[in-house]
Amino acid sequence: MSEHDDLVGDYIVVKALENGVNIIGLTRGRDTKFHHSEKLDKGEIMIAQFTQHTSAIKIRGRAEVLTKHGNLRSDEE
Amino acid sequence: MSEHDDLVGDYIVVKALENGVNIIGLTRGRDTKFHHSEKLDKGEIMIAQFTQHTSAIKIRGRAEVLTKHGNLRSDEE
Amino acid sequence: MSEHDDLVGDYIVVKALENGVNIIGLTRGRDTKFHHSEKLDKGEIMIAQFTQHTSAIKIRGRAEVLTKHGNLRSDEE
Amino acid sequence: MSEHDDLVGDYIVVKALENGVNIIGLTRGRDTKFHHSEKLDKGEIMIAQFTQHTSAIKIRGRAEVLTKHGNLRSDEE
Amino acid sequence: MSEHDDLVGDYIVVKALENGVNIIGLTRGRDTKFHHSEKLDKGEIMIAQFTQHTSAIKIRGRAEVLTKHGNLRSDEE
Amino acid sequence: MSEHDDLVGDYIVVKALENGVNIIGLTRGRDTKFHHSEKLDKGEIMIAQFTQHTSAIKIRGRAEVLTKHGNLRSDEE
Amino acid sequence: MSEHDDLVGDYIVVKALENGVNIIGLTRGRDTKFHHSEKLDKGEIMIAQFTQHTSAIKIRGRAEVLTKHGNLRSDEE
Amino acid sequence: MSEHDDLVGDYIVVKALENGVNIIGLTRGRDTKFHHSEKLDKGEIMIAQFTQHTSAIKIRGRAEVLTKHGNLRSDEE
Amino acid sequence: MSEHDDLVGDYIVVKALENGVNIIGLTRGRDTKFHHSEKLDKGEIMIAQFTQHTSAIKIRGRAEVLTKHGNLRSDEE
Amino acid sequence: MSEHDDLVGDYIVVKALENGVNIIGLTRGRDTKFHHSEKLDKGEIMIAQFTQHTSAIKIRGRAEVLTKHGNLRSDEE
Amino acid sequence: MSEHDDLVGDYIVVKALENGVNIIGLTRGRDTKFHHSEKLDKGEIMIAQFTQHTSAIKIRGRAEVLTKHGNLRSDEE
Amino acid sequence: MSEHDDLVGDYIVVKALENGVNIIGLTRGRDTKFHHSEKLDKGEIMIAQFTQHTSAIKIRGRAEVLTKHGNLRSDEE
Repeated sequence: MSEHDDLVGDYIVVKALENGVNIIGLTRGRDTKFHHSEKLDKGEIMIAQFTQHTSAIKIRGRAEVLTKHGNLRSDEE
Repeated sequence: MSEHDDLVGDYIVVKALENGVNIIGLTRGRDTKFHHSEKLDKGEIMIAQFTQHTSAIKIRGRAEVLTKHGNLRSDEE
Repeated sequence: MSEHDDLVGDYIVVKALENGVNIIGLTRGRDTKFHHSEKLDKGEIMIAQFTQHTSAIKIRGRAEVLTKHGNLRSDEE
Repeated sequence: MSEHDDLVGDYIVVKALENGVNIIGLTRGRDTKFHHSEKLDKGEIMIAQFTQHTSAIKIRGRAEVLTKHGNLRSDEE
Repeated sequence: MSEHDDLVGDYIVVKALENGVNIIGLTRGRDTKFHHSEKLDKGEIMIAQFTQHTSAIKIRGRAEVLTKHGNLRSDEE
Repeated sequence: MSEHDDLVGDYIVVKALENGVNIIGLTRGRDTKFHHSEKLDKGEIMIAQFTQHTSAIKIRGRAEVLTKHGNLRSDEE
Repeated sequence: MSEHDDLVGDYIVVKALENGVNIIGLTRGRDTKFHHSEKLDKGEIMIAQFTQHTSAIKIRGRAEVLTKHGNLRSDEE
Repeated sequence: MSEHDDLVGDYIVVKALENGVNIIGLTRGRDTKFHHSEKLDKGEIMIAQFTQHTSAIKIRGRAEVLTKHGNLRSDEE
Repeated sequence: MSEHDDLVGDYIVVKALENGVNIIGLTRGRDTKFHHSEKLDKGEIMIAQFTQHTSAIKIRGRAEVLTKHGNLRSDEE
Repeated sequence: MSEHDDLVGDYIVVKALENGVNIIGLTRGRDTKFHHSEKLDKGEIMIAQFTQHTSAIKIRGRAEVLTKHGNLRSDEE
Repeated sequence: MSEHDDLVGDYIVVKALENGVNIIGLTRGRDTKFHHSEKLDKGEIMIAQFTQHTSAIKIRGRAEVLTKHGNLRSDEE
Repeated sequence: MSEHDDLVGDYIVVKALENGVNIIGLTRGRDTKFHHSEKLDKGEIMIAQFTQHTSAIKIRGRAEVLTKHGNLRSDEE
């Protein structure tokens, strides 16, 4: 495993706007499956990188999301 | 498999504006076939990289899409 | 096959403005032939990379196209 | 054949403004000959890379052309 | 272990706006678990890098967070 | 022959403003001779790269020329 | 040990706004522990790099902090 | 001979403003001698790269010259 | 020892605003100790690089400090 | 001899504003001597690279000089 | 000794505003000692690189100093 | 000796504003001594690179000096 690869991976920033926001990592490779789910309570922030094991990230619940292509909100509205 | 390759791949950001938005990964290589389909409910966000296995991504249903060439909406209008 | 090559390839973004928009991949190499055609219905978005097998992309039907040289519309007008 | 080389090649964008626009690939190497001609109907878009086999591209008929040095129209006027 | 990798890793800046702010490092790798938690008192600042062992950082409690994608506040409001 | 070299070569864009515009490739190497001449009719566009065989390009006849140092017109005025 | 790694590491700038400001280096690696604490008196400036041994820096007491993501003050207010 | 070297060499653009403009390539190496002279008629454009054999270019006669350091005119005035 | 490493290291600029300004180099490595102290008189300027032996620099006394993150003054006020 | 080195060398642009302008190449190496002198007549332009043999260029007589640090005139005034 | 290292080292520009300005090179390495002192008379300019032997530069006397972090004056005021 | 090193070295531009301006190259290495002095007459321009043998350049007499950190005049005023 090359450490360099992990360290240059881009990251996103997620701020939960309600309790129970889920940040779900999907596996890289032929099969795309959930491999980790992190729960955030209201007001918590998570900064998550793409890694050797994560090629997609799914966000459920009301949250503010910062990415290199801009910012947006995940919510019902 | 080189991890570096996976990690520098660009990503897109998709926010579902209705239930049942599909984000479909198409296989890289001679044959271009569906290899994974992820369903988003209204308000969910998915951040997806191009990978060793995905060279095209198709989005069905009403969604907001952020890419390096700009943002646009997939919907009927 | 080097994965790196695939992953750094640029991509274009296509949004269908009517049913039956075709995104056609033309083969790289001495012979330039159709190798894949993807049909989009109205409002669908496809994000497609140049790959080891695709050196040209043709778009038929009304669509909005985002590229690094700017955006334009494919349509009759 | 190195895939990397193909994938980093720049591309141009051509939108046909009339039926029968020709996008003609000229061979790389000592001899510069036509090796492929692609016909576009009015409103169609083609995105074409320089490749291992193509070092010049000729456009015949009314079209809008997007390049890294700017955009221009091929037509009689 | 390559030192270079550690040193080029990006960092975030966190300023606690109340006592007891937690900055939690999540492990890189197949399993994503807590591996370190640092407590900040009101007014303290922590500057933390992604490392060989940390691929995600979680912030609990009222804090100001500076990242390359912008700044935001983790709090109840 | 390295393909990479060909593919990163810069290109110029030429639009013929009259019939019979000539785009002439001059050979690279100790001897600088004509090795190819391409004729454009009025309104045609040619996008031409510097290659392994071409280190200078000469344009005869009225044309619009786009280069990285700016644009200019070749004509009598 | 590669010197290059140390030398390209980013640095932060800290100016103490009161006596007894602490700049605390936390160890890189599996265990994140204090490995050095530097005390600054009012008006003193310290410029500190991330190093082979330091992956996080904690600042206690009133100080002005300059980082690549912006500047901020550590204090009670 | 490395092709890469030739292809990344910068180029200049020369437009003749009168008949008989000379673009003269001077040899690279210990001896700096004329190795090629190209004559342009009024209105003709030449785009010329520095090459393995050319380290200096001399322009005689009225011409418009585009370079990376700016544009200027060679003429009597 | 690689010279390159030393030479690409960033530098800071310090101008003493009173007699007896101290610029103190702290050692790189597990132990962070003073390894050199340079005294500046009023009006003197010192330009100092991070080196193989210096990973932190401390400034005591009234001085103007120029860094890549901005400029600031070390003094009592 | 590496061709690459010669080709990436920067260049300057000199336009003679009177007859008999001299562009003098000084040798690289321990001894700095004249190795070539090129005479320009009024209105002539010369574009000259630094090369394996030239590390300094001297301009005598009235001329306009374009460099990456700006433009200036060599003349009596 | 690698020449490349020396040549890419940054430089500073110093203009003496009085006679007897000293530009003092301090040695790189464990010991930081004076290794060279250059005296400038009023109006003289010196452009000095960091080198294999110089990791810090001290300026005594009234001078104008140009660096990549900005310009400043060393003097009594 | 690597030619590349010499060719990528930065350069400065000096224009003499009086007769007898001296551009003095100081040797690189442990000993910093004069190794070459070039005299410019009023109005002459010299463009000089840092080289394998030159790590500092001193300018005596009234001159205009262009560097990457800005321009300045060496003179009595």
